[in-house]
Amino acid sequence: MELSGLPFRIDALHAAYGDGLPAAAVVAEAHRRLAAVADPGIFLDLIPEAALIAAAAALPPFDAAHYPLWGIPVAVKDNIAVAGRPMTAACPAFSHIPAEDAFAVARLRAAGALILGKTNLDQFATGLVGVRTPYPVPRNTADPSRVPGGSSSGSAVAVAHGIAAAAFGTDTAGSGRVPAALNGIVGLKPSVGAVSSRGMLAACRTLDCISVFATSVEDAWAVFRVIAGEDRADPYSRPITWVEPGAVPARLAIPAPGDLHLDDAAGQAAWAAARALLPEVTEAVITPLLDAAKLLYDGPWIAERAAAIGDFAAAHPGALHPVTEAIIGGAGRFTAVDAFRGLYKLAEHRRAAEEFFARVDVLVVPSAPNFPTLAELDADPIGPNARLGTYTNFVNLLDLAALAVPGPKRPDGLPAGITLIGPRGSDASLAALGMTFAARRDAATQETQAA
Amino acid sequence: MELSGLPFRIDALHAAYGDGLPAAAVVAEAHRRLAAVADPGIFLDLIPEAALIAAAAALPPFDAAHYPLWGIPVAVKDNIAVAGRPMTAACPAFSHIPAEDAFAVARLRAAGALILGKTNLDQFATGLVGVRTPYPVPRNTADPSRVPGGSSSGSAVAVAHGIAAAAFGTDTAGSGRVPAALNGIVGLKPSVGAVSSRGMLAACRTLDCISVFATSVEDAWAVFRVIAGEDRADPYSRPITWVEPGAVPARLAIPAPGDLHLDDAAGQAAWAAARALLPEVTEAVITPLLDAAKLLYDGPWIAERAAAIGDFAAAHPGALHPVTEAIIGGAGRFTAVDAFRGLYKLAEHRRAAEEFFARVDVLVVPSAPNFPTLAELDADPIGPNARLGTYTNFVNLLDLAALAVPGPKRPDGLPAGITLIGPRGSDASLAALGMTFAARRDAATQETQAA
Repeated sequence: MELSGLPFRIDALHAAYGDGLPAAAVVAEAHRRLAAVADPGIFLDLIPEAALIAAAAALPPFDAAHYPLWGIPVAVKDNIAVAGRPMTAACPAFSHIPAEDAFAVARLRAAGALILGKTNLDQFATGLVGVRTPYPVPRNTADPSRVPGGSSSGSAVAVAHGIAAAAFGTDTAGSGRVPAALNGIVGLKPSVGAVSSRGMLAACRTLDCISVFATSVEDAWAVFRVIAGEDRADPYSRPITWVEPGAVPARLAIPAPGDLHLDDAAGQAAWAAARALLPEVTEAVITPLLDAAKLLYDGPWIAERAAAIGDFAAAHPGALHPVTEAIIGGAGRFTAVDAFRGLYKLAEHRRAAEEFFARVDVLVVPSAPNFPTLAELDADPIGPNARLGTYTNFVNLLDLAALAVPGPKRPDGLPAGITLIGPRGSDASLAALGMTFAARRDAATQETQAA
Repeated sequence: MELSGLPFRIDALHAAYGDGLPAAAVVAEAHRRLAAVADPGIFLDLIPEAALIAAAAALPPFDAAHYPLWGIPVAVKDNIAVAGRPMTAACPAFSHIPAEDAFAVARLRAAGALILGKTNLDQFATGLVGVRTPYPVPRNTADPSRVPGGSSSGSAVAVAHGIAAAAFGTDTAGSGRVPAALNGIVGLKPSVGAVSSRGMLAACRTLDCISVFATSVEDAWAVFRVIAGEDRADPYSRPITWVEPGAVPARLAIPAPGDLHLDDAAGQAAWAAARALLPEVTEAVITPLLDAAKLLYDGPWIAERAAAIGDFAAAHPGALHPVTEAIIGGAGRFTAVDAFRGLYKLAEHRRAAEEFFARVDVLVVPSAPNFPTLAELDADPIGPNARLGTYTNFVNLLDLAALAVPGPKRPDGLPAGITLIGPRGSDASLAALGMTFAARRDAATQETQAA
């Protein structure tokens, strides 16, 4: 078999393993692909090839029924603990070596996955652009002049290049969705608490999720199925009632024209093409949902980030990326009274979201309204980043689940994506719709290519 | 019928109404009883007798099936809105006249209840003693040298005197239970959110409950049944699955000796006598539950009180009771980071409570460890108040339900009570146990009197 042509998808890898391919060959191929893309910004810590080959050799005999991720190469964002490997959260001074795997990483290993290493991110998972790192910025896989998206930049890029079959991101304000959209892959952001966050460095602890990148909804779901479940030791673990993807939900909505924010003609064309592939949709005013996002960065939730890393920052002057430092430093102006008033406002926004999702099964939105260039971020490190969160920031605040799926490409060849959003526990419904949408997209692409 | 001997219980009143007693006679009797006790501290606003008699006359024909509180005189704590009547929360400068009834008050009226007026309280519901009011302090019904308990002082005293058959309190840290215990009546503190708080002035909005005082568990339950239910307009409304009191729960626990805090021999004797009336119990270490209470007054939750009334206090210097002002003024030292860290600690405490109530159906505790005198409060306005909350403060923080029930009296003749505590939604189980306990208490009292 020509390994360089082997797609790093679970079905393809498992078929090859069934035919006798050794897992060691796949991890060696992962290293070869990483070397070929020659992007030093993707991994902050790479497990040495020899250690990976040893780990592959130590796997039990191939058995996909018992080990659903047997031999699957997976990358882990560097704000999630992998035992014995340095963890920096993209802040060198923060580097330490956790003794234990994060809960979700341990689940990966128990399912047979092979951990490739730790990936780059917007420092302390604060950002949606992927450029807020003191390490080399991972390059966008479609256009190196554009931002890779963040904060889970390295994980998304590793999967988009086919170096890892899947990767963990984290998602507080959109970090598991924006980089998926900007690199043309799938980003599954589970219901808040469906996956334990134990061993993940908190960003906003009441909102954080571990998320999954993959090249297909099927693969993202296969990983989610392995890591979802209750963890009594994480006080924010809240398992969902488990269902497998089944019927495609019927009541779909898209933003009404007044709530449609798409900054360029290419993005608008991609959205129109994606919309044409959707089943019947209605247009809905979603301003009350979008408005909830203001709480996240303009309100006291920024204090959650300071609660997580403020003591470290105070003890290590100059250790933070200047943009990160400026953002976290802003937390000091919020009082406990502000925090509680923020919670009251959030409770009202959640009521509005409950009413919305009593009428609608799935809200479909563009994953991002813009696709900034690196130059734009150099000129303004805050504005384009904030804009990227238009359709992501409100989701965890409102206790929703989301799935970013690539749509038809933009006329300029850049990736574009849609995000499916549903109420807590709708993860399987979103996956069912995502699979149907992706199948239609692929069929349409083949027609176009055949024509 | 000799009205002065008619117990203001729902069954007795409805029997009398069935026999033709006019409701107007009962509200007139309520006024007569109030005049007889000659305590100017109970009501801050009393509906004039003529208006009450008119309201009684305006009731539909007596029909207890359709109007379960038909003709029942009820008092309302003066931090809950009654349309058209002044509301002060025991702060004269705060006086205003709400245009609408609170949700729970409207439910009372729709069930046929007659609202007698608005009762005194620890100002802004901040306190467990009942003496933090610029108005005359309501007198404890058993011993006027002792505190009445608070913050729902006037409501508890009105019910204990038989002026009202039931009354609304509010309960954030124990204000619906402590004054019940100190006046020998029942205090039902529902699961948080089971009763809408709309129209109640917030104390700590994430924790507040409207509570019910009555002379029996049956009557408290009859009122709770009328007011419980969802209110979509209150973002903190969370209806419980409704069940009626049935089987007495089996797994009962009491505090292990190290967690038993009873400050005098009389209180210890009353606890021993109450314990003897309980079904089989086990002793349990409850330190992790008690410790959660520290968050409430020593932690950032105090900022919730400032969020509710801080702007008013700032705009009206000198308007607050000095003790209240000192407590609320302490909120300024807490930052939003403190608030979120408090929420994280609370999440861990809630986990501990969930584990506890996985093993135990009902925790039975003394309602209060002490029974302060007015003189003790004069000497130290804070310490004895804090002590009173030992067995109450943690309950709403941990999302629990509670029911305070009078136990056998202390050897010195003062009332003493026990509080039944269970997980969210256990309201009916607590009521079932409370009814059984009260029946055993009454049987034991009759035996003693017969002997």
